[in-house]
Amino acid sequence: MTNCIQGFKDYFCRPKNTNVRLKLPFVCFAWQIAMIILFGVFVRYNNESDAHWVQNMAQNNITSAIENDFYYRYPSFQDVHVMIFVGFGFLMTFLKRYSFGGVGFNFLIAAFGIQWALLMQGWFHSLDPSTGKIYIGIENLINADFCVAGCLIAYGAVLGKVSPVQLMVMTLFGVTLYAVEEYIILNLLHAIDAGGSMIIHVFGGYYGLAISWVLYRPNLHQSKHLQGSVYHSDTFAMIGTLFLWMFWPSFNSATTYHGDGQHRAAINTYLCLTSCVLTTVAISSLSQKTGKLDMVHIQNSTLAGGVAMGTAAVFMVSPYGALIVGFCCGILSTMGYLYISPFLEKTLKIHDTCGIHNLHAMPGVIGGIVGAITAATASESVYGMQGLINTFDFTGNFKDRTVFAQGGYQAAGMCVAMVFGIGGGAIVGAILRFPIWGDPADENCNDDDVYWEVPQDEEDQLESVPPILEYCNYMTNKPEDES
Amino acid sequence: MTNCIQGFKDYFCRPKNTNVRLKLPFVCFAWQIAMIILFGVFVRYNNESDAHWVQNMAQNNITSAIENDFYYRYPSFQDVHVMIFVGFGFLMTFLKRYSFGGVGFNFLIAAFGIQWALLMQGWFHSLDPSTGKIYIGIENLINADFCVAGCLIAYGAVLGKVSPVQLMVMTLFGVTLYAVEEYIILNLLHAIDAGGSMIIHVFGGYYGLAISWVLYRPNLHQSKHLQGSVYHSDTFAMIGTLFLWMFWPSFNSATTYHGDGQHRAAINTYLCLTSCVLTTVAISSLSQKTGKLDMVHIQNSTLAGGVAMGTAAVFMVSPYGALIVGFCCGILSTMGYLYISPFLEKTLKIHDTCGIHNLHAMPGVIGGIVGAITAATASESVYGMQGLINTFDFTGNFKDRTVFAQGGYQAAGMCVAMVFGIGGGAIVGAILRFPIWGDPADENCNDDDVYWEVPQDEEDQLESVPPILEYCNYMTNKPEDES
Amino acid sequence: MTNCIQGFKDYFCRPKNTNVRLKLPFVCFAWQIAMIILFGVFVRYNNESDAHWVQNMAQNNITSAIENDFYYRYPSFQDVHVMIFVGFGFLMTFLKRYSFGGVGFNFLIAAFGIQWALLMQGWFHSLDPSTGKIYIGIENLINADFCVAGCLIAYGAVLGKVSPVQLMVMTLFGVTLYAVEEYIILNLLHAIDAGGSMIIHVFGGYYGLAISWVLYRPNLHQSKHLQGSVYHSDTFAMIGTLFLWMFWPSFNSATTYHGDGQHRAAINTYLCLTSCVLTTVAISSLSQKTGKLDMVHIQNSTLAGGVAMGTAAVFMVSPYGALIVGFCCGILSTMGYLYISPFLEKTLKIHDTCGIHNLHAMPGVIGGIVGAITAATASESVYGMQGLINTFDFTGNFKDRTVFAQGGYQAAGMCVAMVFGIGGGAIVGAILRFPIWGDPADENCNDDDVYWEVPQDEEDQLESVPPILEYCNYMTNKPEDES
Repeated sequence: MTNCIQGFKDYFCRPKNTNVRLKLPFVCFAWQIAMIILFGVFVRYNNESDAHWVQNMAQNNITSAIENDFYYRYPSFQDVHVMIFVGFGFLMTFLKRYSFGGVGFNFLIAAFGIQWALLMQGWFHSLDPSTGKIYIGIENLINADFCVAGCLIAYGAVLGKVSPVQLMVMTLFGVTLYAVEEYIILNLLHAIDAGGSMIIHVFGGYYGLAISWVLYRPNLHQSKHLQGSVYHSDTFAMIGTLFLWMFWPSFNSATTYHGDGQHRAAINTYLCLTSCVLTTVAISSLSQKTGKLDMVHIQNSTLAGGVAMGTAAVFMVSPYGALIVGFCCGILSTMGYLYISPFLEKTLKIHDTCGIHNLHAMPGVIGGIVGAITAATASESVYGMQGLINTFDFTGNFKDRTVFAQGGYQAAGMCVAMVFGIGGGAIVGAILRFPIWGDPADENCNDDDVYWEVPQDEEDQLESVPPILEYCNYMTNKPEDES
Repeated sequence: MTNCIQGFKDYFCRPKNTNVRLKLPFVCFAWQIAMIILFGVFVRYNNESDAHWVQNMAQNNITSAIENDFYYRYPSFQDVHVMIFVGFGFLMTFLKRYSFGGVGFNFLIAAFGIQWALLMQGWFHSLDPSTGKIYIGIENLINADFCVAGCLIAYGAVLGKVSPVQLMVMTLFGVTLYAVEEYIILNLLHAIDAGGSMIIHVFGGYYGLAISWVLYRPNLHQSKHLQGSVYHSDTFAMIGTLFLWMFWPSFNSATTYHGDGQHRAAINTYLCLTSCVLTTVAISSLSQKTGKLDMVHIQNSTLAGGVAMGTAAVFMVSPYGALIVGFCCGILSTMGYLYISPFLEKTLKIHDTCGIHNLHAMPGVIGGIVGAITAATASESVYGMQGLINTFDFTGNFKDRTVFAQGGYQAAGMCVAMVFGIGGGAIVGAILRFPIWGDPADENCNDDDVYWEVPQDEEDQLESVPPILEYCNYMTNKPEDES
Repeated sequence: MTNCIQGFKDYFCRPKNTNVRLKLPFVCFAWQIAMIILFGVFVRYNNESDAHWVQNMAQNNITSAIENDFYYRYPSFQDVHVMIFVGFGFLMTFLKRYSFGGVGFNFLIAAFGIQWALLMQGWFHSLDPSTGKIYIGIENLINADFCVAGCLIAYGAVLGKVSPVQLMVMTLFGVTLYAVEEYIILNLLHAIDAGGSMIIHVFGGYYGLAISWVLYRPNLHQSKHLQGSVYHSDTFAMIGTLFLWMFWPSFNSATTYHGDGQHRAAINTYLCLTSCVLTTVAISSLSQKTGKLDMVHIQNSTLAGGVAMGTAAVFMVSPYGALIVGFCCGILSTMGYLYISPFLEKTLKIHDTCGIHNLHAMPGVIGGIVGAITAATASESVYGMQGLINTFDFTGNFKDRTVFAQGGYQAAGMCVAMVFGIGGGAIVGAILRFPIWGDPADENCNDDDVYWEVPQDEEDQLESVPPILEYCNYMTNKPEDES
């Protein structure tokens, strides 16, 4: 009987070599305390969330409380919030034994990231130089969620292969880099990127890929038995997919200008996503000998349209223009899963667990290009004079910029995002290679058992086995006289 | 050992005879390209989503961007969107091995359907004859979601028994028929049907039942082992149920008139649904010898109240009136699952996988009747003069219509919906019988393995068995001298 | 072979001794009919949901339909609705075999409770003495959801140990007690409790704990094998956690005053919850030898910040103040799971299935204290004169109250909530001990099989075993000459 039990032991009691008992609490406590101190020094309510608002309404020509920016943006904010925590979180539950890590670490780093993002973005965008304070309102919360999205995208590339401490470090630097590139792209270049094709997806995508490249594990095949999905983990992942897909119109319209801006951004994104679903299904089916669909494609490539519509969502791309963008993205993203991801892994040694190159980086680049072209070809006849000013924010220092120049700055913005992503990711990856962060061994990758108390399903199965074993035992050993 | 392995083989390697590798991609590509061309020719942004809107505000007596219809309807739109993709999608994951098909094909046909619906409904309702263009805004998106709901309801009747290509065909015709009957009911008969009891649920329900009747499979019992649910698939289905249940007030109020119209529709639906839950539980418990509840009833019949409140949601039915409607629907719908569904299958040869007759068709008819009666008994004392005009839209050609006549037109509307559903479904069902659509064999019904790459859970279980087998093998064959 | 099969039988066919076939339907029907009658007598649409509203707009100085309270509150209402049904419901699916009971009974009692709450709260808050009618609008729906939350919290303490009939009784009395304490706290003491730290969480928490104390089962260990979670049930529970976490800002801001009130309440809650996540993770990791995280903590303690921010959400606590509250709550709540819950069970004989003491009662008390202190230290310089009046509603009889007095009344309010919870719970617990409610035997606790038709997963597994058994059988019994 020994060799049998031994087999079970080998199977169920895999060695673990990671202990984050001191590192993880230290990081969480230290950073949270730092946040409290920095918030104490810098962060205050803005005009519209301060109790003085009612008194100031008359001065600001506001006649009704419904004019508070809260009512323009809160529904979109909540949708974005759902995308960040349920969308990204559940999309990463697809691995058979990494659902806790997928949704749980996503939760942790997003909760930290939005605090740090409020500060970083606040210093760049909402600091009142006269008081030295950052004044926050609902739009800051949305932007913080956006910023964190970049880091969650990057998490997708290294899912299953890093420790929570590494993720916290990755998020700290990711948010910092994001805030800087965002400032350069939005304020210095004055590019438009309402849904963040460039700022969020290109940056986040290449940031994650560069980190994954530096952290490459040649022996990852040792945890190969944990790399796939199971039936129900794929169903869980569809929760993430659908909430991302449904709320992407809110994502791309959440921070666009009031009125027709938000309205048009939602319509464009909605349309772009629908056509993306059809071409994803088509390519997925074509790629299999028997025409079967692959859940990986359905879970991811259907979303590429939302990414690619990010920059141009608020532009007058026309409904059919949005459909064309989605059409191309569905094809390209699914092709990416079929051909580019294997190429990246084999040739460039970049292992991309969730395929963020196909879902975020590549569609983000398309989004940037679409944005540059549509900006450069904008005209007063299509937008109206005031519409052109509203859409491209041709005010202040930028009031004399031509749409053609704007197209150039859009393209420049994309390059900035890419450079920050690749450069930043390479540096942060190098930091993450230090052997102090408690990362898992190759054979422990994709296994929740390393960082989580996992309920003992397997042992349950084991418990249900003994009757059989016992029975076999009994039958084979029964006294001769009984037979 | 051979016969044992053979047993496993027979069990796990069922024959497959469906290949949609060319059909499905062809349909997706061809139809998506057609959509792009038609959108290019016909669809433009409407006044409120066009960049010219700001300039035109003053002319339209709009003083603030918050007056843009976007802010009235977007939160409801997003709730409806969740109902379509997560609600309907997850409600159909209850089968033990058809969760991918349930949520995935729902995703596919909804994404196609809303594009086609924007066009079909646009031609009937939003076409500007002077320019020949369809101008779309947020209300069109909601209506497209509504239209698709009809087809998703129909999918419920044939769940597990059709190919994705058949579903695409079903959706193409379903949306077309829907747009025509909607035009007849809303514009020609000028009936009120804010939440679509008649237009969506009666039509969709009978459309699906008629198709299922034509496609009847006498030997469906061959896949009987796949017809039930498992514990976690039932829990997944509750996600669908709850999102439908919670957001139904948004569904019924999404397109009603601004102000008290939306407000009242939400309240009525909310109340109706609550009482529906209690009577569903009561009948479900009564129907079992030991009083146990049946998940099928909880997942479906609790929603019947939302269906039945669709037409009359905006009427002054009073809070207790809404409760009474829900009370009756919970009873009737659960009874339907217990007695009518088996009757339909045995006697009329209509197999209804999700029980849409009990959840949509029958409660939809009730909704139509309630709508007709409450319309006919409306009075100026209850509604106020302006309220009566707003609620029933007694303007233009219809400004002299009496409420009694309105009741009659409401009833006529329901008949139109039913005729379109049954007639249209019979014809479309006949089309779907052509042996070119790649539908599954009887023994392959309810099995994701036919159209999806399914992760190999079973093989995992198989892999965990060998130690036992090996052990048994070892014990039975061990050399005599060891024992 | 007999003893083997017998083993399976013992394992899978546990005895059942509960039958609610008459009780449950009777309670559902009787109460629902009572609701209909009472609604018929008392409940009407309020001014803003009545069809007369349009006519009265001019009189009420309303210039646009967007001023209808519906548009201020509906998005928040829907978020709260999701928290009640999906949030609380799925949070309770974590037990390996009580997911149906968790989400299903939650659905049932919430659907009943909100009807009863509309009446009870209506009599206290929305009754027009001149007509004797309760006039309801969107704010009443939110308050009904709030009221039900108290009962759902209480359900968490007795999850798995009570029958649905007991839950209905518990909800009936719970809502009644809630409405009374709410009236005392809000109207008589004029305390502020926008997010219900005291009214909802302290009351609900102690109400549930007192009931659980009276219903204590010394032999609960007999169903110990069903007390844990399994991998996928923990993932399901995360759906509940995340929707509660994401939408808590809506919960705490849903009924605060228009404009900056709602805006600030959302920001405070959002911030408080983020810091709560980090300290929860820190303590959870610290508590394990190897630093592994415990899903119970992540699922529950991350939410404690939302509870604690309930009272003070609308106050000017500053962003860093909100972070500090979350910081402390994460620590305290996780500590509660580690040390206080075992203590309560061993020493005080209070078994708390979901740990509501750590998630609701204790953080609620903190919230009450924070509210009292921040109210007592409020100043006109921080709030502005009008802001102070808006925030603390210093109008009518209370227009001369000082903030210091307000702090005292806040503290008094918390005591009232606690007294009502403990006292009410003890009495209701005594009522629930009558042996007429069909509660489960100790060995049947945490088992859906008692009140639900459970699909036969286990038998499926059993069916897959025979080949092995058969094979073993064959090998051991094969004729000598074959070997």
